[in-house]
Amino acid sequence: MRIGLDAMGGDLAPESTVQGAVMAVNEYGYHVTLIGREDEIREQLKGLDYPADKIDIFNASQTIEMHEPAALSVRKKRDSSIVKGAELLKKGEFDALVSAGNTGAVVCAATLSLRLLPGVDMPGIGVIFPTLDKPCMVIDVGANIGPKPFHLLQYGIMGDAYSKHVFSRENPVVALLNIGEESTKGTEFIREVHTMLSESNLNFIGNIEPRDVYCGKVDVIVCDGFVGNIFLKVTEGFADAASTLVKRELKNSGFVTKLGAFLTLPAFRAIKRKIDATEYGGAPLMGVDGSVIIAHGSSNAKAMKNAIRAAAENVSHKVNAHVVEELRSY
Amino acid sequence: MRIGLDAMGGDLAPESTVQGAVMAVNEYGYHVTLIGREDEIREQLKGLDYPADKIDIFNASQTIEMHEPAALSVRKKRDSSIVKGAELLKKGEFDALVSAGNTGAVVCAATLSLRLLPGVDMPGIGVIFPTLDKPCMVIDVGANIGPKPFHLLQYGIMGDAYSKHVFSRENPVVALLNIGEESTKGTEFIREVHTMLSESNLNFIGNIEPRDVYCGKVDVIVCDGFVGNIFLKVTEGFADAASTLVKRELKNSGFVTKLGAFLTLPAFRAIKRKIDATEYGGAPLMGVDGSVIIAHGSSNAKAMKNAIRAAAENVSHKVNAHVVEELRSY
Repeated sequence: MRIGLDAMGGDLAPESTVQGAVMAVNEYGYHVTLIGREDEIREQLKGLDYPADKIDIFNASQTIEMHEPAALSVRKKRDSSIVKGAELLKKGEFDALVSAGNTGAVVCAATLSLRLLPGVDMPGIGVIFPTLDKPCMVIDVGANIGPKPFHLLQYGIMGDAYSKHVFSRENPVVALLNIGEESTKGTEFIREVHTMLSESNLNFIGNIEPRDVYCGKVDVIVCDGFVGNIFLKVTEGFADAASTLVKRELKNSGFVTKLGAFLTLPAFRAIKRKIDATEYGGAPLMGVDGSVIIAHGSSNAKAMKNAIRAAAENVSHKVNAHVVEELRSY
Repeated sequence: MRIGLDAMGGDLAPESTVQGAVMAVNEYGYHVTLIGREDEIREQLKGLDYPADKIDIFNASQTIEMHEPAALSVRKKRDSSIVKGAELLKKGEFDALVSAGNTGAVVCAATLSLRLLPGVDMPGIGVIFPTLDKPCMVIDVGANIGPKPFHLLQYGIMGDAYSKHVFSRENPVVALLNIGEESTKGTEFIREVHTMLSESNLNFIGNIEPRDVYCGKVDVIVCDGFVGNIFLKVTEGFADAASTLVKRELKNSGFVTKLGAFLTLPAFRAIKRKIDATEYGGAPLMGVDGSVIIAHGSSNAKAMKNAIRAAAENVSHKVNAHVVEELRSY
């Protein structure tokens, strides 16, 4: 398995990316191509222990920063790690590409270089979301913020294929994120999507309210990219705020409460492991003709390693072939 | 102060509403008119201790259930507690109306009976959202799910007036909920709202991402009703899921961890008090020509009492007069 990694992508890059690549090489035996500024990558590789034939570097002199406008920077920065990564994947230099860089730029570069799968009109980011039961895919969480209703039908079909072939779920349950359960709820756009999903062959159970997502009764949650992105960021923000609140309260507590908190730590560590986003690796960019995994901007080395593993799984489960097959039967 | 209360509204009504009314009467000395099925209300009042001249009942034979279509049920159920409540407020039978019933029906009945304030084109629900610092108003969270950009400008102005006069904040900070901070982010609709808010006299600081809402640096957060409703329900759902996760983990823990959890309880109780939505009472329905407070459907007696208090504050701070004044100056 050969994975290309945008070595410059992410808030902690290139340290996180290079270390994550070395971990993946040593743990899983993959080959990793690090794409980015060669001197910086070599600097990071110094002193790390790995089989030399398993890592190589492709020099790309530019980087697209996190807040640069996506389409413009992809057009202008032709020698950036993101653009080069997408081009190298297209050429078959590796089997999958991982980036924790500017999400919009990754979507844009991947779509331009790789093109879309037959039957797909817009790519969608399908994040793997931990719940109280099993993880589900929420698609789209930001690739396409002004979608047409049929894009969301395609997201449902792609999520269904992913859920079947990567999570081995039979007849995955698909739901539409909405502000109420009744089919009459929501905007005209949402109601149109509801009708399309109802008329499809998917195991569509109707609308799901955000508060019911966490119980994990659903395998695929379909939404437009704007709403999906809000959904994702509210969850992240709330988790951070809750953690801050607990720490602050404990700091002002007496000895007994502090002792209690100390004794409770194992339970909280276990919870953290269960819902730790870094465990699930990155989010597959569904619908492009190639395996692309988008990792969180704040990914550390472990998260990068897991994103590389997720990319390899995407390839070995032939996700795209199954997506094409499912789309053809609709 | 005379408050009208939809005695049939909410998952726990009429027990929660009647008990909440009695608490408010005893604690604050308000007069409360309970609107709903007289026999059921009388049954609930039995055995409760309160000054008899402070509570009266207005019989309304119908109730609008939580999942009935709003506009249709308001048109058909003319003798429902919600429709009667709005009509009685219009007639001046009391100073403000509180309902934990079907939100859409409350918005619809209030708009029909009371009409809108001059300068307002659509009402908005402004929820008071607890953060790590001070509470902020998020407007709209579901009254208007297909808004025009200028509706959101009006929400900003109304939120600003509320923040100034109820929370006594000087020059309230207003932000627009979006998926990124840059002004180029988001849909065309959002960018149009951004331009309008930038050109207004509001203290507008630009876009805010959901994860930054919780830190509490902002006084008013403007959003469309669909996104605002998703925002609110994700927060609720996540809080419930986190609590379930902690309980489940502790149940499977050993004695020492359980002891630790017991010792930590005071800190968690303190946190719960701080972020307890029931403490903040209900959400004002901004823009209608009358004081209407929408309480959460799951409100218990304490939450109902606090919603009644919030309604009284809305009246005593002359929120609507200030809204009209602010709108006139734009």
